[in-house]
Formats: sequence, C-alpha cells, structure tokens
Amino acid sequence: MSAQKEIVFGVDIGATNTALGAVDSGGSILFEEVFETYPERPADEFADRLGRTINRILAGPLHEYTLRGIGIASPAANYLNGTIESPANLRWGVVNFVDLMGGIIDVPIRLVNDGNAAALGERRYGAARGMNNFIELTLGTGMGAGIFVDGTLLVGAHGHGGELGHIVVSPGGRQCGCGRTGCIETYVSASGLQRTIAELLSHRADQSELRRLGHGEISSERIFNLAKQGDSIAIEGFSVTGLHLGRFVANLAATFDPEAVILFGGLSNAGEFLLKPTLQSYNDSVLGTYKNRVKILQSKLNNGRAAVLGASSLLVDSAEEVYQGNSQIS
Amino acid sequence: MSAQKEIVFGVDIGATNTALGAVDSGGSILFEEVFETYPERPADEFADRLGRTINRILAGPLHEYTLRGIGIASPAANYLNGTIESPANLRWGVVNFVDLMGGIIDVPIRLVNDGNAAALGERRYGAARGMNNFIELTLGTGMGAGIFVDGTLLVGAHGHGGELGHIVVSPGGRQCGCGRTGCIETYVSASGLQRTIAELLSHRADQSELRRLGHGEISSERIFNLAKQGDSIAIEGFSVTGLHLGRFVANLAATFDPEAVILFGGLSNAGEFLLKPTLQSYNDSVLGTYKNRVKILQSKLNNGRAAVLGASSLLVDSAEEVYQGNSQIS
Repeated sequence: MSAQKEIVFGVDIGATNTALGAVDSGGSILFEEVFETYPERPADEFADRLGRTINRILAGPLHEYTLRGIGIASPAANYLNGTIESPANLRWGVVNFVDLMGGIIDVPIRLVNDGNAAALGERRYGAARGMNNFIELTLGTGMGAGIFVDGTLLVGAHGHGGELGHIVVSPGGRQCGCGRTGCIETYVSASGLQRTIAELLSHRADQSELRRLGHGEISSERIFNLAKQGDSIAIEGFSVTGLHLGRFVANLAATFDPEAVILFGGLSNAGEFLLKPTLQSYNDSVLGTYKNRVKILQSKLNNGRAAVLGASSLLVDSAEEVYQGNSQIS
Repeated sequence: MSAQKEIVFGVDIGATNTALGAVDSGGSILFEEVFETYPERPADEFADRLGRTINRILAGPLHEYTLRGIGIASPAANYLNGTIESPANLRWGVVNFVDLMGGIIDVPIRLVNDGNAAALGERRYGAARGMNNFIELTLGTGMGAGIFVDGTLLVGAHGHGGELGHIVVSPGGRQCGCGRTGCIETYVSASGLQRTIAELLSHRADQSELRRLGHGEISSERIFNLAKQGDSIAIEGFSVTGLHLGRFVANLAATFDPEAVILFGGLSNAGEFLLKPTLQSYNDSVLGTYKNRVKILQSKLNNGRAAVLGASSLLVDSAEEVYQGNSQIS
C-alpha cells in the first residue's frame, strides 16, 4: 500500500456482533464500528448491511480515502473458493460470500476463517513478527487455529486445513458440538474449562465459591477472578486445562517443529494460571528434540481487534515480504 | 538434469544395510548395490566406505557418466543443516554428514530423513505424482512420515518437522523407544502389530497358530500369511491396527486437509486386511468436512528402492516443477 490516502477494511463476523475497521498501510485503525450480526437472517441481508455500513463510512468520516479492498474473517470460511460453509452459529448454509460482497462493492475481497485471521494479525503486528513457522491457537468458546509453514498460511488442498480444535485427543470422551467425542476443544477452551470445573465440583469436596453459581454463570473471567482469590477448584480448573494444552502443544511440536506456539483469545488472558501448568505439562510430554526449541508464547494482540487487523492484512501489499528462504524442498 | 550422461546417486542408510543406486534423469536406476552399514563403527569410517563404493562404480560400470550429486536418506537426518543427530540405531552421535561426504567427493550433497525421502520418491515416481498437499506414512519397524504442504516438504523451523510416529495418542499407554508412552508408532507399525498380537493372545481364548511362536518370531509377514489362512487373532491384529490408524488419519485430515494420506512400508503390504478396517475407522472418526475429500491410498513405490529414488530426486533439477499456485497467503 503506497499512498497515505488508501485504506483497507477488515471485517470480523461473529455470531452476535460484527466488527469492522478501516486500516491504513501501517496497521493503524483509523475508524471502527460494531453492529449486530442477526445470525438468523439470510446472508444477503447481512452483506447488504455490511456494504451500506462501509459506504456510509467512506462517504462520511473517511471521504478523503480510497478503498483498496476488504478482508473478511468468518467462522467456517474457505479461503480457496471464498465460501462460508454452514457455520454452526449463523443460519447461512453454504454461501459464496466473496461473490456476494463483490456484487455490492467492486474492490478486491478476501475471506479467511477467524482462526487464520488471528494468525495473520499476529504475524504482521504481534508476537509472530518475522516468524515463518508458527501456530496460533485461539482459545475462545471453542479452539481456533492458524498455522504458518515456511512463511505460508496452511489452508490445505480443499481450504479446510488447520481445524486443530477438532483433533480428537480422547475417543469416547466429552461430547463435542461437531457431533463426535473427545475433540481437544472440549477440554481446552472457555467452554472446556467450564466443563472441567463442573467435573471438579462433582469429584472433589473443597469449599468453593463456584458451588454457588449456575453452570451458565461460570465464565472464564469469573474462574480467573476466583483463582486470584485462591479458590482451589478454580486454580485446579486451569491446571487440568494446562495439562491437556501442554500435551497438545507437544504433539504440535513433533508435527510442525515450529518456532513457537502462540496462545490467543479469552482463556489466554488467565496468564500464569494457565501458562505455568501448560509449560509444566509440555516439558513433561515433549520429545527431547523439541525441548528448548519450540516456544510457547502469549499473544501480543488486542483481543477485539486481532481478526480485523489480520483480515485487513490480506489486502496489504506484502510482495516484499514473501519468504525467500532456501530451505524449501519442492 | 539435461544430458543423458549425467547421474545422481541416491543412498539409503539403514541400521543393518545401506543401499545405493545410480539414477538417471528419468528415474531409472542404472546400477545398484547394497553393503553392510556396521552401525557400531564411527561415521567417518562409514563415509569413507561410501565414497570408495561410489568412486569404484564411477570408475567401472558407469565410467561414461558424470556424477551430478548425491542424495542421502538417513534416520535422524536434518535437512536444514546437513547433520545426522544421534540416531537410535547408529553409534554416530551428532555428525555433519553433508560436510563429511563433501570432503570425500566434491559434488552437491543433500541429506533428508528416511520418512521424508519416501515422500519425495512418492511425489516424483509414485501415487503422489502431481499432488502438492499429501502425507506419506511409512509403516516399518516404527512409523516414519513425510508431509507436503503447498508443494513444499515440511521440515519446520529447526529441521525436525514431520515426526508423526511420536505423536502421543494415549498418554500412559505403551512404552516407546523414545522414552515416553503412548506414541502412535507403538500401535501402528510392524512392532506395534506384534505388541497388539501379544495383547490379543493374552486377552482372548481363540485357537491360533500364533500361540506356537515366540514373540520375536511374530513378524508382520507371518501375521499376514496367517490372516490369509483365516487365523482370527491375526485378522483381529490388523483390525485393531486399522482402528488406531483410521483415527490417526482423521486427525491428520483436520490438521492438514491434504489430498491424500499414502501408506507405505512393510505393514502396508497387508493390503485389505489393514486397509479395510482403516477406512472403516477413518469414516467413523473423521469430521464431515473431510469425508470423501481426503483419500487414503496405498503407495505405488517399490519398498526397497523408495528412499534411494526419493533421496536422489533432491538433486534432480526441479525448477520447472516448483509450485506456482496462487493459493499461498504470505
């Protein structure tokens, strides 16, 4: 992006809200806005509202800027063909969202899934700057992921690579929203932590503030606050989560041998309560080859803006940054 | 490789024997030889013998050919820096084998681990021809692997990517040679099958020819032959192995979304006895997204020559074959 007067829009479609930001070539968000997604309404109605919102911003506060493109992060997005494919929390079915938006605003449009968008943002603006091999784990309600191999985002042959949240680590274990059992995200995510707390409350007899709350009231933030107050069930909840996460990262090390695995998303805000047992479990689990080589880091991205920045970065000119290493075997 | 009179040597270093072949630009092996590795002797003695063997062949039967380079497949090989790092079955410690050989024969030399060499061979001459995203699993005594992502062999940040045999699928499960427990290769490999048979013999009461054999006599080939004769323990041994393998491939699908996972190595010769339960387990386990997309195939490579061909292919000019797809996000 050469001129000062050009911008890219980054859009983060969530089940409840959609955030969008106008980003300049330096990664500064010049203007941002959030509107309701209304997930039960059809995709074309949503696309229409998104288009009108962008046009209104361009006609008003940003009238001196030229729109260079729109990068969109969404659940169940397929980068290769521009479709959003039956997301769990949006009643859109399968829709080619790039074509749909392209019919409304005639600029280059790119679509990635939200886990990948976080990885793109982390690489351009966060803890993965300069890294060509890393894995971003987004620990939200579920677990999202983005994987860089040799400077390239792994999307796979059909656009569905990097669905790490649905790696089965315990066949016959916890039921997952995907219809199967034992997916890692049923253990390592905000909802996984909630379930672990329920299990601990049933198994153990410790006093805990958590016993007074309904299952739905037990948020990660609440568990974190209780852990800080010394609540033993809350602390143990993070320890169990870290045990699973450390083992999982050890397997990622043997698979990808990355520079780092970066933890992002709500659950990662628990800091040492999660990080310490994760590192302990990782060091106990990992093959010697990877010890002290593959790092586990916390994200340096702002939670609310990561996907917006990551999605927008797809349209920022990166020709000079394409990996030119000589380690590729083709 | 332009001229008819140029050749590349492919070398496959095993704990017992080392195979080498002189390969022309079309992938034909013009001359091959096998010699003993003597794993207890030092690496420089081995390199010296390898150099003398190659020079003897070049001075004799292939005196009309020019040597263009040497590609070497070895256990515990690091492509990035040319070292062989403390292989389990060779008493070599850590040695820069590319430098060592380069001091003996002054031609370009490349080193890859044996699992990666099989993947390279499969892509150039076998079932993965034309594929840019696939995974080769070598089911030998252990489990080796080679992973192609977007047309590039995954080696990772430190040269140790793709150690899939040491993915832990059952923490606290079977003891592995790596010092940990529950690695997939303790279940899915020739030695894993042997252990499964021992477990079945202890749990079940069926008559079986296998009860007459010592544990060391129970080879994959013998189990395969008994399965063909209808031995129920032998058949069940493959079924249990396929159950584990199918689940593992389902996780690889969610991770890489490849075109195919290709089964290579001694155990894969069992054909339908292994393939049928593997496909059954895979279809039962895999996330709907990947069903009917990610294929499970048998290798089209000759077992004895795959690593030789794969290693030699590192020196065959592949400039015209470098993946030029537009699906990369950098």
